[in-house]
Amino acid sequence: MPHQNFTSCIAACYDCAEACNHCAASCLQEQDVRMMARCVALDIDCAQICELAAAVMSRASENSKTVCSACAEICQVCGDECAKHSMDHCQACAQACRRCADECRKMAAMA
Amino acid sequence: MPHQNFTSCIAACYDCAEACNHCAASCLQEQDVRMMARCVALDIDCAQICELAAAVMSRASENSKTVCSACAEICQVCGDECAKHSMDHCQACAQACRRCADECRKMAAMA
Amino acid sequence: MPHQNFTSCIAACYDCAEACNHCAASCLQEQDVRMMARCVALDIDCAQICELAAAVMSRASENSKTVCSACAEICQVCGDECAKHSMDHCQACAQACRRCADECRKMAAMA
Amino acid sequence: MPHQNFTSCIAACYDCAEACNHCAASCLQEQDVRMMARCVALDIDCAQICELAAAVMSRASENSKTVCSACAEICQVCGDECAKHSMDHCQACAQACRRCADECRKMAAMA
Repeated sequence: MPHQNFTSCIAACYDCAEACNHCAASCLQEQDVRMMARCVALDIDCAQICELAAAVMSRASENSKTVCSACAEICQVCGDECAKHSMDHCQACAQACRRCADECRKMAAMA
Repeated sequence: MPHQNFTSCIAACYDCAEACNHCAASCLQEQDVRMMARCVALDIDCAQICELAAAVMSRASENSKTVCSACAEICQVCGDECAKHSMDHCQACAQACRRCADECRKMAAMA
Repeated sequence: MPHQNFTSCIAACYDCAEACNHCAASCLQEQDVRMMARCVALDIDCAQICELAAAVMSRASENSKTVCSACAEICQVCGDECAKHSMDHCQACAQACRRCADECRKMAAMA
Repeated sequence: MPHQNFTSCIAACYDCAEACNHCAASCLQEQDVRMMARCVALDIDCAQICELAAAVMSRASENSKTVCSACAEICQVCGDECAKHSMDHCQACAQACRRCADECRKMAAMA
């Protein structure tokens, strides 16, 4: 599959990685960090798998399906956690995670 | 699951990442690089997912199963390609990939 | 420094990572892969440091200056190599590398 | 420089990455997470640059000096923060960071 076909999924992965990294750092600045501990942990995992998914797709790798499939799962878990918290960084991250999960699921089905 | 339980799988992942990165760079120095092109591409993917698997396990992450499962698949594909080439770096990499695939499969089954 | 200030540099890093990963994979498909070996190796390094720079800036990390400074150097080296090759993927990558090097240098000076 | 010369620095980087990832996750489980917020943030940066340093050295990359130099700085900052906290995971991480900073400084001077 040519690299061009991956464009929209790569963009969703980078958006999600950025939102997750921003959310993790912002959670660590909150008054009640303890309540945000699982959110921080999931954000870091999610940012890292999104970066990897973007990288393998940019290389039009034959492993794209495998990585996107794992990425979709991890985005889903992270998005569900973020959605529970009312802060802007969590709500924005929840949205980015869900969009990325959708894109990665489609990619995993196609690739 | 405590971090300690992951120890042997983390070590296998780091060994595999190192072997894959070394193999990729060595393949690029071979006379007939063209024959090694798929090996280089798979090595890079494999090194990156192994580093991610080691990271999530070191964090005792709830996503460990998901990442180890993907890592096992990618190690298998890379190990099968490396095994086709007689160079020392490819043979050593094939071994590291297979051991890592085994450890990750066990982890994915347990986690 | 707030996360927002990093926006343009983060975008340049993600663009550069994508261009480098695409260039690496495309170089591996060229007839004369051997001529492209250094380009592949530098592309992979550059993609990885760009992803890291984007991550630390997204976290508004106090290490942003250190990472952006290293990223600028590595982008420069990669862009200079890519610029020597006439293929579209190399020329596009050279441009992305140079833009990213500029953005990272500015960031390293400010942060 | 051959890959073999990097062996001890690569091992220090992987040890440090593992210690930092473990420390980050453990800090997030502490009663007073707030006091650990900077430690978590620095641990994540440090784990990521250590993984990158190990990767570039495993590829015997010409960028090894640049990455090891940045890695040494980031390890130093992280080790200094970890050393302030009495928990086992922080003390172990401080040690791993300092050893890695030393190895990376030597590598940066040699490479």
